[in-house]
Amino acid sequence: MENVTIHRLADVSSDAIIGEGTRVWGWTQVMPGVTIGKGCNIGTHATIDTGVTIGDNCKVQAGARIYHGATVGNGVFIGPNVVLTNDKHPRAVNEDFTLKTNDDWVEEGVTVKDGAAIGACSVICPGVTIGEFATVGAGSVVTRDVPDHATVYGNPARVHDK
Amino acid sequence: MENVTIHRLADVSSDAIIGEGTRVWGWTQVMPGVTIGKGCNIGTHATIDTGVTIGDNCKVQAGARIYHGATVGNGVFIGPNVVLTNDKHPRAVNEDFTLKTNDDWVEEGVTVKDGAAIGACSVICPGVTIGEFATVGAGSVVTRDVPDHATVYGNPARVHDK
Amino acid sequence: MENVTIHRLADVSSDAIIGEGTRVWGWTQVMPGVTIGKGCNIGTHATIDTGVTIGDNCKVQAGARIYHGATVGNGVFIGPNVVLTNDKHPRAVNEDFTLKTNDDWVEEGVTVKDGAAIGACSVICPGVTIGEFATVGAGSVVTRDVPDHATVYGNPARVHDK
Repeated sequence: MENVTIHRLADVSSDAIIGEGTRVWGWTQVMPGVTIGKGCNIGTHATIDTGVTIGDNCKVQAGARIYHGATVGNGVFIGPNVVLTNDKHPRAVNEDFTLKTNDDWVEEGVTVKDGAAIGACSVICPGVTIGEFATVGAGSVVTRDVPDHATVYGNPARVHDK
Repeated sequence: MENVTIHRLADVSSDAIIGEGTRVWGWTQVMPGVTIGKGCNIGTHATIDTGVTIGDNCKVQAGARIYHGATVGNGVFIGPNVVLTNDKHPRAVNEDFTLKTNDDWVEEGVTVKDGAAIGACSVICPGVTIGEFATVGAGSVVTRDVPDHATVYGNPARVHDK
Repeated sequence: MENVTIHRLADVSSDAIIGEGTRVWGWTQVMPGVTIGKGCNIGTHATIDTGVTIGDNCKVQAGARIYHGATVGNGVFIGPNVVLTNDKHPRAVNEDFTLKTNDDWVEEGVTVKDGAAIGACSVICPGVTIGEFATVGAGSVVTRDVPDHATVYGNPARVHDK
């Protein structure tokens, strides 16, 4: 991978594809099957889970968690400590205390379209789509799709005039 | 400890007890006096503070912070960036700017009962008990006890029908 | 720097100034131009961004992110996974998808005055001032200045009697 800068304290899978000019900072995990485009900046302490796709020129801030099933477009900003979830009914065990297996849950990944921005500490619920150049205010809990160019914030997040 | 998998980048105290089949991932701190049961998965970037007890078959996700005084049952799911707090009146100093000492505060640990699940980025306030197989939705701030099998969400979290 | 304790897993810039008796824990980044006073405790997994100033006797908990432009007084408590932001309109790219540069945004740093305490997982919005000995409850999104000695919580945070 040309001109890719991986910090010595990062943990990037050899089975990840990372575009030219992208930097990955320390204590950040990029798992197998991840694709990250060109010119991105992936901050410290972040988690990019298996199979996640991130476009070009994105900024992912410190402590962000992007879970399996997420598709992130081009020019997206993902703030610090943000979580893109994928499991509407998380649970470690079934009611009889048997461990849940990969067959016991339905994954619903998050989609973030080109140019969108997600403020610090927000959570995007499973299956939600954040529209193009949409803005999610800091500390939001986003339970529904966000239209292109809309501004949402709050818990639960609602559309507001800017 | 048999069949325990500690990632090379984790920092696990030799004074912690960890059950068979449990895995602890990178950049996670397990402090002295911690007890973790069998078959657990403790994700990256997590904090398991001194003396915390975690049962069997739990999943603790990346960036979760479980502070001193917490008792976590069996089969519990603790989502990414969740915090189990223990200090109702946190403060670094007293009004006269003398440093607070361990005698200057009352610790109230969190209890999470068997099978409960706590969604991403939630905070559980000091002294709160989360009931058996209860569900805490993502981004919740839980200020009161949650009954067994109840679903709560919001800031502050309230009981809702699923 | 005398009597400063830097954990072997921390990443502290040689261009940071750290006061006597202060400890910095593992997987925490202290960037160039940072000034931290005496007797502070900077927890694990934290981010102290370039040029940030922190006074004496502060406690910064695990996973906190303190961004450029922040001024933190003496005896301040900053809870786990808290974020002090600095960009009211975060965006990775301009509308024409050219990358934003340092000239394309207005930084508005956060000010936290002496003795204040910020509860777990709270976000402080750009330009906000948290008053002396003020209390920000856990999980708050603080969009307005907080008066001295006031208690605020919620999303958005409002003043409440204690």
